[in-house]
Amino acid sequence: MFKKITIIGVGLIGGSIGLAIRKRKLAREVVGVFRHAQTAKRALRCKAVDKATMDMKEGVEGADLIIIASPVHSIPGLARYAIRFADKGAIITDAGSTKSWIVSDIDKAIGRSKAVSFVGSHPMAGSEHTGVEFARPDLLEGSPCIVTKTSRTNKAALAKVAKFWKSLGARVEIMDPAEHDKSVALISHLPHIVAFSLAGCVPEGAMRYAAEGFKDTTRVASSDADLWADIFFSNKKEVLRSARIFSDFYWRLVSMLSKGDSRGVRKCLRAIKAKRDRSVNGPKR
Amino acid sequence: MFKKITIIGVGLIGGSIGLAIRKRKLAREVVGVFRHAQTAKRALRCKAVDKATMDMKEGVEGADLIIIASPVHSIPGLARYAIRFADKGAIITDAGSTKSWIVSDIDKAIGRSKAVSFVGSHPMAGSEHTGVEFARPDLLEGSPCIVTKTSRTNKAALAKVAKFWKSLGARVEIMDPAEHDKSVALISHLPHIVAFSLAGCVPEGAMRYAAEGFKDTTRVASSDADLWADIFFSNKKEVLRSARIFSDFYWRLVSMLSKGDSRGVRKCLRAIKAKRDRSVNGPKR
Repeated sequence: MFKKITIIGVGLIGGSIGLAIRKRKLAREVVGVFRHAQTAKRALRCKAVDKATMDMKEGVEGADLIIIASPVHSIPGLARYAIRFADKGAIITDAGSTKSWIVSDIDKAIGRSKAVSFVGSHPMAGSEHTGVEFARPDLLEGSPCIVTKTSRTNKAALAKVAKFWKSLGARVEIMDPAEHDKSVALISHLPHIVAFSLAGCVPEGAMRYAAEGFKDTTRVASSDADLWADIFFSNKKEVLRSARIFSDFYWRLVSMLSKGDSRGVRKCLRAIKAKRDRSVNGPKR
Repeated sequence: MFKKITIIGVGLIGGSIGLAIRKRKLAREVVGVFRHAQTAKRALRCKAVDKATMDMKEGVEGADLIIIASPVHSIPGLARYAIRFADKGAIITDAGSTKSWIVSDIDKAIGRSKAVSFVGSHPMAGSEHTGVEFARPDLLEGSPCIVTKTSRTNKAALAKVAKFWKSLGARVEIMDPAEHDKSVALISHLPHIVAFSLAGCVPEGAMRYAAEGFKDTTRVASSDADLWADIFFSNKKEVLRSARIFSDFYWRLVSMLSKGDSRGVRKCLRAIKAKRDRSVNGPKR
């Protein structure tokens, strides 16, 4: 499918993408671009890439697909850097958790040039762990992957990027970056804020009584703090909007409890369970 | 260890206790007391009990340990009923998620009589599932189990109940019922309120993009709605107190985000992650 795929940022996500490409033989060569020799060594040891380089020019030249899988705040900068060395016709995509500002910034960098195309992506997989050591070739299998489309998106590149993620086993959805940021604020960024707050408000002494419920509900609060701070700030408007939606719902439920409205609480909890069972635990995923 | 252990209410928890007792041969006989013939059949099919009965008298007579593992609201009533038929010297315990009102009600029912002893217990295990089909003999292994002690608690009975839970693999902690309700409101009831609210506030349409983070954070929102409504109401004061603690923390974090206080957010998230990693993910559990 591809001659050379270059992955910039080979951590949990980038590494899993590399492993999946290599396993499924979707490219003749998978090259990783690194900032630190130590990370390059680890990625080679995990067989996440065929070749590692610290040189952007060397990494990007000859690549027909360039995937930027670094922390969100660094994506536009790395894209601008990669564009300078990218072959004519190369497609650039990313794996960032927020899309509006990444897509508009990179679209601006490309400008009217038709030399390279950019298509924003957000493979929605991962865990609370970071680092290539946790990468798995099946990480994306069955996971949602949102691919963005704007008035500037090259259609052929969009189709190719969508097909690429599908071939890694992801369930691809195409949408507008703003729509992405709104949905993902609710379904991904908000759960992180909530989990961090829950783990934050419980005194450490009480945590010795933590059973599976607490552990699961707060699992993502063991995620990398700076990575998530960046994500929250990069999608601040929608995160704040989601935060208010959650708080309103929460206080409606807590108020019913406070007023002793047993019927109201039961009706509310039953509806939530039914909705979650249908959507998340449903048979067809 | 015991001649006959009677379990009143053989669902996920009661069934797991039955399986564990039988596996570890802690009693010559495990008898289940049921309200419905259908549930009795299912428990026998799962081998959670040796014998099933719909008759409280038959179930309780001759038992040296009686465990009430039914939904919280029914525990005091079933205890009062069981006491009428219990042998002299029998120990009664329960598996309810709330302790103050259960313990004080049953202590009152026993009164000054020394015929039977009651010791409140809360094995903190379970899942979002209900029913004996999900019972597992290892459900309690490594889980916290709180055993309550009041001025009325018979010391020998307390020691025996604590030893019993330990022999099922649980990590036993002895505390005052009020202290239990306060800690458990934070570590167990609050996560359920939060998870229900999170699953409640996200539109069903957005749930198709749910990745592992959302699934884990809301897993317990697929728990039985009425069972949890009962638990919340039975520990209402402490649940409301915990709800305010969470909301205060949540809004402190969201406000920092809103003000663009990057240093504050980072510092806060890092501290939370470190605390959770130490306490929940720590090597020594």
